[in-house]
Amino acid sequence: MRSRRGAVMVSSRARLGPQPRCFAASAHACFSFTSGAARAKLTAEVYPGLKRDERFAELTAEHVAQLKKIVGGEGAGVIDGAAGEDLEPFNEDWMHKYRGQGRLVLRPASTEEVSEIVRYCNDNRLAVVPQGGNTGLVGGSVPVFDEIVISMGRMNRIHSFDEVSGALSLDAGVILETADQFVAQRGYIFPLDLGAKGSCHVGGNVATNAGGLRLLRYGSLHGSVLGMEAVLPDGTVMSDLCTLRKNNTGYDLKQLLIGAEGTIGIITKLVVQCAQRPSAVNVAFFGLESFEKVQLAFREAKAQLGEILSAFELMDAKSQQLVHEVRGDKRPLDGDHPFYCLVETSGSNGEHDSAKLEAFLEDVMGKEIVADGVVAQDDTQLRALWSWREGIPECIGHGGGVYKYDVSIPLAEMYSLVDDVEARLEARGLLGDTEDHPARGVVGYGHMGDSNLHLNVAVRRYDAKVEEALEPFVYEWIEKRKGSISAEHGLGLAKKKYIQHSRNATMIGLMKQIKNLYDPNGIMNPYKYI
Amino acid sequence: MRSRRGAVMVSSRARLGPQPRCFAASAHACFSFTSGAARAKLTAEVYPGLKRDERFAELTAEHVAQLKKIVGGEGAGVIDGAAGEDLEPFNEDWMHKYRGQGRLVLRPASTEEVSEIVRYCNDNRLAVVPQGGNTGLVGGSVPVFDEIVISMGRMNRIHSFDEVSGALSLDAGVILETADQFVAQRGYIFPLDLGAKGSCHVGGNVATNAGGLRLLRYGSLHGSVLGMEAVLPDGTVMSDLCTLRKNNTGYDLKQLLIGAEGTIGIITKLVVQCAQRPSAVNVAFFGLESFEKVQLAFREAKAQLGEILSAFELMDAKSQQLVHEVRGDKRPLDGDHPFYCLVETSGSNGEHDSAKLEAFLEDVMGKEIVADGVVAQDDTQLRALWSWREGIPECIGHGGGVYKYDVSIPLAEMYSLVDDVEARLEARGLLGDTEDHPARGVVGYGHMGDSNLHLNVAVRRYDAKVEEALEPFVYEWIEKRKGSISAEHGLGLAKKKYIQHSRNATMIGLMKQIKNLYDPNGIMNPYKYI
Repeated sequence: MRSRRGAVMVSSRARLGPQPRCFAASAHACFSFTSGAARAKLTAEVYPGLKRDERFAELTAEHVAQLKKIVGGEGAGVIDGAAGEDLEPFNEDWMHKYRGQGRLVLRPASTEEVSEIVRYCNDNRLAVVPQGGNTGLVGGSVPVFDEIVISMGRMNRIHSFDEVSGALSLDAGVILETADQFVAQRGYIFPLDLGAKGSCHVGGNVATNAGGLRLLRYGSLHGSVLGMEAVLPDGTVMSDLCTLRKNNTGYDLKQLLIGAEGTIGIITKLVVQCAQRPSAVNVAFFGLESFEKVQLAFREAKAQLGEILSAFELMDAKSQQLVHEVRGDKRPLDGDHPFYCLVETSGSNGEHDSAKLEAFLEDVMGKEIVADGVVAQDDTQLRALWSWREGIPECIGHGGGVYKYDVSIPLAEMYSLVDDVEARLEARGLLGDTEDHPARGVVGYGHMGDSNLHLNVAVRRYDAKVEEALEPFVYEWIEKRKGSISAEHGLGLAKKKYIQHSRNATMIGLMKQIKNLYDPNGIMNPYKYI
Repeated sequence: MRSRRGAVMVSSRARLGPQPRCFAASAHACFSFTSGAARAKLTAEVYPGLKRDERFAELTAEHVAQLKKIVGGEGAGVIDGAAGEDLEPFNEDWMHKYRGQGRLVLRPASTEEVSEIVRYCNDNRLAVVPQGGNTGLVGGSVPVFDEIVISMGRMNRIHSFDEVSGALSLDAGVILETADQFVAQRGYIFPLDLGAKGSCHVGGNVATNAGGLRLLRYGSLHGSVLGMEAVLPDGTVMSDLCTLRKNNTGYDLKQLLIGAEGTIGIITKLVVQCAQRPSAVNVAFFGLESFEKVQLAFREAKAQLGEILSAFELMDAKSQQLVHEVRGDKRPLDGDHPFYCLVETSGSNGEHDSAKLEAFLEDVMGKEIVADGVVAQDDTQLRALWSWREGIPECIGHGGGVYKYDVSIPLAEMYSLVDDVEARLEARGLLGDTEDHPARGVVGYGHMGDSNLHLNVAVRRYDAKVEEALEPFVYEWIEKRKGSISAEHGLGLAKKKYIQHSRNATMIGLMKQIKNLYDPNGIMNPYKYI
C-alpha cells in the first residue's frame, strides 16, 4: 500500500516482511513497507513527473577510471555497478520506499578525497548524492536516477575529546551510537539521540538537523555543533573546526549546512559540544481529563522539575487502547483517560530527582490537573512505562495501514488537528468501527515538549477518498496555524513539493539563491529539498 | 591614552569622567575613555587609513525629504543634523572611543518603514548603519563617515508569549532587561544576560551573537532564536517568525544574521525560546594551587553539579590582590592562592542545590583539588562573593591604563597566555614593581565554563614598547592554539583587520561572497566586520 501524496501509508504486512537494516526513532518513523519483499519500485516510476536533468553528463568508463584513481583504485573506496558489484544498499532506502539507479558508489577515506571527487564531478557535470547511514525518512540520501553516491562510512575516526570542556572532534561518518559510547565512557552524553543511532552517521544527523529524543534537554544542533569541515560543490574545503563555545569572528557559515540535507556541501568533520551525562533517570506516567490539563501539567512540570525535565510525551486515549489491544499487557493506570503523559527526569542525584518528581505528581494530582499517575520504582518499570509510548507506532499498524504526519504546531492548538481530522473523516462517512468504513481511527501522540505532534490515521484499506479528505487539508490546517509540515524529518524528495505550506515565496526564493550560489550546476543531491 | 592597535587602552582618568550612558558586562568590557571629556576623536582621524567609499552618494536635501516621508515627516521618526538636532548620541559609542559623522538618524516604527528606507538607500547608494542600544564594544553600531543611522528604538513592542512553550515574540528594539522582566513575571528567563541589559536591544544582541553570563547554562543564540524577521539590503523582508523548536523545511537563513553585526540585514522582529526561571541560586568561592587543579575542579563541578551549574568563573591571584588593594574589603578566604574560582548553581529547589554544592565542596577539598572554599549563606554574601569577580575590571584600571583582550582558547592552554605574556614583558624589562617599568602587572580571569579568557595588562603609562611586545604576539599566540581573537564582542571596526588570526583565507573568501550576495552595493554597515 502506498500513499500517492506526502503522507506515508504503512501496511500491516510490514510486520511479516524482512527486518529493516536499522530503525528510525520509533516515535516518529515513517514506515512504508510496500510488501513483504524487500525491493522497492524505482523512484523514477513512482514519481513519473520527475525527469533526469539533462545538464548532467552520463557516467562514462573514463569518468569511472578517473574517480577510482582518487579513492585509491579498486579497493574499499569503490563499488562499481558495471563490475557487477551490489549497489542496492546504497540505491535504496531502508524503508524500501525509494530506489535510485546509481551505478557507482565512492567511499572516500579523507577530506582531500571528497574534495577531489566533488571537484571532478562538478567539472564534468556529474550529479552526486552524499550518503551517511542511509537511515533518512524522506528519500534524501539515495539517488533518483544515476547520481554517484558518495558514502561517508570510511571517514569514521574520532579525533579528539576535551574531557574538561566536552568538545568532541570526529569524522562525519562516525556512527551516532559509537560517538555516544565514546563520550559515555568519559562521563558525557552526545547531545542527540534517536532510534537509528546504531546506523546513522553524525554527519547525516547534522546535515538533516536531526531532532530526536534529547532536544528538549540539550537543544538543537544549531547550538551544539561548535565546528565543521565541509566540501562545497566546487570542491572547496570549508574548514571551521572550532572547538570553542564562543567565537564571534564573522558569518557563521556552518549553520547553513545544518539541515541543508547535503544540497550545498558534504560535511566531512564536526566538533560537537557534549553535555554531562546524567546519572539518574526517573519516569512518571499519568492520565488527564483534557488537552487543557495536559498543557497545565506541562507548564507545572517545567516549573517544578525545571532543569531535570528531559522528556514530556503526549499520548491520546486511542493510542493507548491500540497498544493495549495489540499487546494485552496490563495498563499502567486503572480506568480510561482522554490523555496520557509520560514525564522523564534526568539529573545528577537520583534521590533529589525522585523527591522532585514525587512532589510534582502529588502537587498536580492535588490540584486535579492530573487524574491519576504512577512513578516507576525500578528500571523494569521505567522501561515498561516507556513501552506504552514507544509501542504506538508498531501497534497502530495492526489491522491495516497508517497515514503518518510528523508536524510541529503551536502548543495551544496542537491536539486540535487530531480532533479536526477525525471530525472531517466522520462527516464524510469514512471513519467508523465497521468494515464498510475505510478509516479505523485517528490517533495523536508525540513530543509535547517540542510541540511535535504525530498525527496517525489508521485505515483498513487504501481508499482514495481518505487521502482526498486528508490532503491538502492537513497541510493547509498547519499552514493556517503557522506550524511546520516537517518537524524533524526534513524535506528530501517526500516533502519537497509541500514546502510552500511552511515557508513563504520570499523565503523559498532566498533559499534557491543560496543553492545557486554554492551549487550553480546543481550537481549536489538534485531533485530534492527546495 | 589610546591604543593604536587592536587592544583597548583604559585610562584611570575614566573614573573621573562622565558616567557612560550604559554599562557593558563588567566582566569583559573594553573601556576606552580617552579623557575626562565626553567627546571622542572622529574615527576618521583615528584611523587615517580609512577612506570614505566613493560609491556612496552624498546625502542631499531631496534624499532627506524622501526619507522623512517614509517615517512620517518631522515627528519622532527623524533626527536631522541639518536642522540643528543633536546626533551625538547616535554618532558616538558609549565608550567615547568611536565617533562618526552621520547627519541623519531615522527611527522607523515598523518593518515596512525599515524596508522602504533600506530600499530607497540601496537604490540611491546611501550607506546605512543599523543601531540598537549602541552598547557595542567594537565600534560596530556607529557611523564612520556620513552613513545614515537607522535606530531601532521605536520598534519596541512585545508581541506575544506562549506561557506553555516559553516562545517570546518581540520587536528587535525591545531592551533586553524589559524582555527579561516581562518573562520573569511569567516564571521564565530570557536566555541571555549581560551588563548592558538596561540599554541594549534584543535585536542588537542577536546581530552581535552576544554571549554573556548565561551561555554556559542556556547555550548560544544560534540555538535559542526560533524565528526572525529581517530587512535585507535591497529592502526584501525575510520573514521567518517561527515559534516552534522543530522546523526542518529548508536552509536556516536566519542563522546568517546571528552575529552578522548588521552587515547583511537589519533584524526587525524575533522569536526567542525562554527557559524556566530558576528559583534558587547558590554561590561558592574557592582557592586552588594551580591551573591544572582549576581544570580538575571544573570537571568535577560539571560531574557533580551537572544540570544546576550556571557559572564557573576563573580569577588569578593578581586579580584578587588588585581588588583587595583598591577596595580594602576583607577577602573571602584566608591566605593567598594562585587561583580562585567562583561556582554558581541555579535550580528549582534550593535545598537540593545547597546539598549538592556542599557535597561538591567537601569532595573537592577532600581530594585536595581545592585548597580552601566558602559557600554564601545568604544573598548579601552571595553578592559579596560575586563582587570579587565582577570588581576586577574596575579595580585593574586604578593607577594607569589597561590593555584588554577578550579571547577564547582551548581550556588546557587557556591560562598559559597570561604566563607567556608576563614572561615576555619581563624578558624585555617592561614589567616590574617600580616606576621605571611601564607595565605593572599581567592579569587573567574570565568565564572558565566557556573557555573565555580576559587577558589584562595593567600599565603605568603608555609605552610603544609594551604595545610592540603584545601585538601581534597575542593574536599569533591565539592563532597557534586555534583560539578566537573575539570570543563574544565581535569584529566591528576594532577587530576587522585581525580576522585572519581566527579564520583562514578560504573562510574569509566565503564570508565576502555572502556579503556580496546580499549587499552588492555595500551600503549596509560599511568599513567594518570582514
